[in-house]
Amino acid sequence: MKQYLKHDPWKIIEEGFSPEYNRISESVFSLGNGRMGQRATFEEDYSGDTHQGSYVAGVYYPDKTRVGWWKNGYPEYFAKVLNAPSWIDIKITIDGEVLDLAKGKVASFRRELDMQSGLLTRTFTLTMNSGKQVSVEAKRFCSMADGEVGAIRYTITPLNFSGQIEIELPVDADVVNKDSNYDEKFWLEIYKAATAEHAMVIAETKKTAFQVCTGMTYSVLQNKTAVQVEGNAFTKEKYASVAFTLNVKAQEEVCIEKLAVVLSSENYKKENLAGACEKKLVNVKKEGFSKLFEAHKTNWLKRWEGADITIEGDIAAQQGIRFNIFQLMQTYTGEDERLNIGPKGFTGEKYGGSTYWDTEAYCLPFYLGTAEEKVARNLLVYRHKHLQRAIENAAKLGFTNGAALYPMVTMNGEECHNEWEITFEEIHRNGAIAYGIYDYIRYTGDESYLVQYGLEVLIAISRFWAQRVNWSADKHKYVMLGVTGPNEYENNVNNNWYTNLLAVWTLEYTQQALESVKRQDQKAFETLAKRISFNESEETSKWMDIRTNIYLPEDTIRGVFLQQDGFLDKELLTVSQLRKEDRPLNQKWSWDRILRSCFIKQADVLQGMYFFEERFTHDELKRNFDFYEPMTVHESSLSPCVHVILASVLGYKEKAYEMYLRTSRLDLDDYNNDTEDGCHITSMAGTWMSVVKGFGGMRVRDGKLHFNPFIPDQWKSYSFKLEFRGRVIQVNVSKGSTDIKVISGDPLEIIVGEEKALA
Amino acid sequence: MKQYLKHDPWKIIEEGFSPEYNRISESVFSLGNGRMGQRATFEEDYSGDTHQGSYVAGVYYPDKTRVGWWKNGYPEYFAKVLNAPSWIDIKITIDGEVLDLAKGKVASFRRELDMQSGLLTRTFTLTMNSGKQVSVEAKRFCSMADGEVGAIRYTITPLNFSGQIEIELPVDADVVNKDSNYDEKFWLEIYKAATAEHAMVIAETKKTAFQVCTGMTYSVLQNKTAVQVEGNAFTKEKYASVAFTLNVKAQEEVCIEKLAVVLSSENYKKENLAGACEKKLVNVKKEGFSKLFEAHKTNWLKRWEGADITIEGDIAAQQGIRFNIFQLMQTYTGEDERLNIGPKGFTGEKYGGSTYWDTEAYCLPFYLGTAEEKVARNLLVYRHKHLQRAIENAAKLGFTNGAALYPMVTMNGEECHNEWEITFEEIHRNGAIAYGIYDYIRYTGDESYLVQYGLEVLIAISRFWAQRVNWSADKHKYVMLGVTGPNEYENNVNNNWYTNLLAVWTLEYTQQALESVKRQDQKAFETLAKRISFNESEETSKWMDIRTNIYLPEDTIRGVFLQQDGFLDKELLTVSQLRKEDRPLNQKWSWDRILRSCFIKQADVLQGMYFFEERFTHDELKRNFDFYEPMTVHESSLSPCVHVILASVLGYKEKAYEMYLRTSRLDLDDYNNDTEDGCHITSMAGTWMSVVKGFGGMRVRDGKLHFNPFIPDQWKSYSFKLEFRGRVIQVNVSKGSTDIKVISGDPLEIIVGEEKALA
Repeated sequence: MKQYLKHDPWKIIEEGFSPEYNRISESVFSLGNGRMGQRATFEEDYSGDTHQGSYVAGVYYPDKTRVGWWKNGYPEYFAKVLNAPSWIDIKITIDGEVLDLAKGKVASFRRELDMQSGLLTRTFTLTMNSGKQVSVEAKRFCSMADGEVGAIRYTITPLNFSGQIEIELPVDADVVNKDSNYDEKFWLEIYKAATAEHAMVIAETKKTAFQVCTGMTYSVLQNKTAVQVEGNAFTKEKYASVAFTLNVKAQEEVCIEKLAVVLSSENYKKENLAGACEKKLVNVKKEGFSKLFEAHKTNWLKRWEGADITIEGDIAAQQGIRFNIFQLMQTYTGEDERLNIGPKGFTGEKYGGSTYWDTEAYCLPFYLGTAEEKVARNLLVYRHKHLQRAIENAAKLGFTNGAALYPMVTMNGEECHNEWEITFEEIHRNGAIAYGIYDYIRYTGDESYLVQYGLEVLIAISRFWAQRVNWSADKHKYVMLGVTGPNEYENNVNNNWYTNLLAVWTLEYTQQALESVKRQDQKAFETLAKRISFNESEETSKWMDIRTNIYLPEDTIRGVFLQQDGFLDKELLTVSQLRKEDRPLNQKWSWDRILRSCFIKQADVLQGMYFFEERFTHDELKRNFDFYEPMTVHESSLSPCVHVILASVLGYKEKAYEMYLRTSRLDLDDYNNDTEDGCHITSMAGTWMSVVKGFGGMRVRDGKLHFNPFIPDQWKSYSFKLEFRGRVIQVNVSKGSTDIKVISGDPLEIIVGEEKALA
Repeated sequence: MKQYLKHDPWKIIEEGFSPEYNRISESVFSLGNGRMGQRATFEEDYSGDTHQGSYVAGVYYPDKTRVGWWKNGYPEYFAKVLNAPSWIDIKITIDGEVLDLAKGKVASFRRELDMQSGLLTRTFTLTMNSGKQVSVEAKRFCSMADGEVGAIRYTITPLNFSGQIEIELPVDADVVNKDSNYDEKFWLEIYKAATAEHAMVIAETKKTAFQVCTGMTYSVLQNKTAVQVEGNAFTKEKYASVAFTLNVKAQEEVCIEKLAVVLSSENYKKENLAGACEKKLVNVKKEGFSKLFEAHKTNWLKRWEGADITIEGDIAAQQGIRFNIFQLMQTYTGEDERLNIGPKGFTGEKYGGSTYWDTEAYCLPFYLGTAEEKVARNLLVYRHKHLQRAIENAAKLGFTNGAALYPMVTMNGEECHNEWEITFEEIHRNGAIAYGIYDYIRYTGDESYLVQYGLEVLIAISRFWAQRVNWSADKHKYVMLGVTGPNEYENNVNNNWYTNLLAVWTLEYTQQALESVKRQDQKAFETLAKRISFNESEETSKWMDIRTNIYLPEDTIRGVFLQQDGFLDKELLTVSQLRKEDRPLNQKWSWDRILRSCFIKQADVLQGMYFFEERFTHDELKRNFDFYEPMTVHESSLSPCVHVILASVLGYKEKAYEMYLRTSRLDLDDYNNDTEDGCHITSMAGTWMSVVKGFGGMRVRDGKLHFNPFIPDQWKSYSFKLEFRGRVIQVNVSKGSTDIKVISGDPLEIIVGEEKALA
């Protein structure tokens, strides 16, 4: 845990230069706009420790997989988010000396991310080894108004000298992924060009043949006046730049605006990339940094209007929640159904694949609550687009008849993770994808989604469950053997309660969905049934048999559901009995010891009780929470939020707040010592849920919004907004009073606690 | 399955050139002498498909490990048997044309391995592309009389031409391992020298810094007369050779004797290697091929005297059993307690590590029965030498108080495998090491081994078991969670019956051993107890508690022991219900499907019943065999032998013979399509056991030899010999009669069936 960042309601601030924290800051201060993203690396050269990272959404590389022992069904590759050609570099040489914060003496340094407007500002004063002093202010953003544009305004002032500054503005495609399995470079050069005005490189990924065209143009102001410089074009392998030299005077600032355009072959024909880029470069140059920024800022302000959460009385919590919302909005804007949410977003390479069950189980509610319907809907359509691949994936494992197993990690629908205990066994993810459909429709009321896409996905998943269980002659029940639940500190267990429950719930919901589609459009149903050879009577009666006879392990003495068969054979300890030096278990204990222990990585039985809360009594929830939470080490960033929500239901205010603290400033305070690899984007949605579903008690039941708010003792008040069925609802909670109003759209019946009200 | 090798009682014969089978033949025709070994690759150049392999016992490389996701406790490296500098090459160029069986037309080709004398002979006639015809006879052996010597006699006859033959005799250390994880070469050159008389290279392994000095000398006969040639010394990186040119006449043979010396820094000081090698080269040249061969042959004949098995009436079976015995004797001679038996011996690289539980569970009985006591004893001492490493290995996983977990795969005592489900969980190997001590003493009566080494190992293993179980409040029993049994088609199961049984048996046997040592040498016991801080009363009473209260799963209705908790939840099918295209499962099914199925890779419950036969009734054995064998796919080469032995006990003669066929010609007929990687050396000991313990019914009970023989219908008679407590016993079994006699040593009471007799 590190707490070197300043508290501020709207800004993230780093004061003073801390090279040892530089990679952490590079993650935290990352910028993105849903189409591209950039870690907060420096524009000028930096010979210190840094992790360069530019990312273009949807562009990945299938790195040759690396496992010890191959097992049948392993994927051939592990898809990596690609470190893409860099557009941010501004190389500065002053009288032959390279400007580099690792060389010389840093007199002052400040990094500031204004989350309200999405602007990163870095200022510093450096005494170079030659004794020359310069001050720099670098501002940049990735435009939310135009996802293909990034802009930098780099202002440099010689403080104690006059002389010559050489400036080079490159586009550099000669980049590497730090996590490349075989130290391979993933980009090939297709085209490059440089003129006095601009530079451009088209690079293509090996194997996947994505092309990214990165271009830059620029303008220069000396002493706030535009000047025409003589740009020298330069190119080398995978690199194009424009360089020029300026004569500067002490105390007179030089300002360079470097404007970048990043186009992907996902959105342009390859042969049109160069032309489109050139055209766009002309346009952005005409606009200039200021106008581009205005459009960007306006866009951000509008987004905040519907999504902001305020917390009064706790500035660290206020900063934390806004940071989470900011990162989520940067990562996914919902405009493109081919994109999804990687666990690190645009802030790092780790967990190379893009999409996990995090999307459906954790992120969907955030986008449902803070953006128009189509944003969340596109997350569902993404899975529908991958349905055939999920069917192929199941077939590889021996399943037939159109059964679908969605991958654990994917870029294009193919599985690209390769631990058998995860890939082959952590199949509950398949249920989460069904649950996502249910959750979307519950919130939006948009049943038509079932007709268009949903039912087809649900049937394919149900077909998987129906084959994945087997009849136990011993138990006279259907059992599900060899799974890994959400608690990945167990592997290859039998009858994981959560997975079994999710499986029969899917069968039940698919039956409802099927009837809904028949009601809405009988003909569409028949067409689908024919296309996928759906034998309704036979398949649904098999489903009913499984639903009726599923085995759900429980301990009738304690009155708790059992995480899996044999759980009670473990030594049942609590986390409070662990020594400090044993934590975190995943760093301190051998894997077999973790597996044998009762300790739980993240909500498992409780994840099921969270998903299907209405099916359980308050007492059941209490007994299970009291049994499992004390064994839970929360070593997944996805764990605390579920516990905030359930603790809130149970009135465990302190536990709820304790869990909230763990999730809300996870990256800002580098809680797990891993922020340098990137931020935990998907768990940030859990933080949002902690406030809205946890403290706010928001639920949708029978199409109606419910709230059951409480306020942590540490706060004076808090407020959040929700987009809900064409309205924006504002919820203000303070000590002793709750105020809920529709601030845009038609009036709405809202239930607070047990009381109905019209807001 | 391939059956291209000719049947012969003493020889392995390949007639005709089959390049497509070349790698298989290279494995099958491998030579070794316990210190060095060599695949049957060609002496002359060969541009076709081949897998060069020279091996020097005990010389390994810690190749950087390669896994997908690191788990705490994984070893840093995977130890590889090294492909060592090659001494066999004889490069032939005839009037500028390289002799190469892949170029030209092969008129005849024959490979023959005479197992009686350990001689490999290869003859061929080739019409080269130029039209020149040559015939070649190449004989070679790795001397059993001197483990550091290899010899080749290479005779070449020009059939239809006279001309010039250039001959180069290299030592080549520029070799690679095909299974190198990072395509790295593992050898560095330390020294090289070549004169007109000899060539020599000293190469050192990276990281482990083993040095191997490989030297060669030669002599030449033309038309059977020794000739002096003008040798030209040549060296390049990691390579030294002598070359010369001969004028040859049609139909006059040229014979080259290439004699090699291979010395390891395991046996010499590094600075003495070159000198010792030179000296030895002079000696072997003086001896010459013929004399060296005579000593080698005499040694082999003596070995066969005590170890041969004859089978009358089934020549394929006769060849098969001799091939197994031959390979086992080539692999391990028992002279050096630092060495052990790799699964592929000197026949290939696969399973890179040297020692598995195969040694104790399968190989020990062979060496006990066919060689003097010290051979098997050295296999036990090997483990004692590794005890501290086994304690460190357990400590890495969180065990304390001198508990030892022997590694799954090792070269030097460190674990060097890296699948958690094997390394961390397949802990029954630890029990096999205890069982090996018991088995050795049972056979030899050498209780003093306990005083010197055995008890210390047993206590350390017992300490492991005592910590590895935990008390289940639910079952009111000690349980063992998260293990993998011998049936590796299950992972991370609870209460594997075999492992639990082996654990409590170890505790019991350690108690007995402890009492034996006290009786033999009270002072030695006290010294040991002090040195290892053994708290006798506390520790043994804990052991007794575990022994009394261990949980051993069973199905009381069927009257069978349960392989593990939850086994009866599986769909209980038999192998006969599988479709042909599903076999072998490990190639056709995904890993999760294998894990969920009831199908068994190799004996698991039955392995326990084999180890502790005397504890079970005939009916118990029958019920368990009838339940488990039909589910067993025998996809480990170690599986059939155990089933031969148990089927023999049960009088299932056909099943016993069916299983025997699967084990005895596994490599000769390439049953599993993998002989090209090397032969299955450790399972060959199982074949020996199949005859001796299976058909012969040999047991040692209370220090007495028992036999209960039967003869497969397909055989006329069979005989085997046993070394037993200073005697050699010959057992002849024919239809209707058994004849057992002591052919060397004192008379002995022997029990046949239920009858005692003096032999």
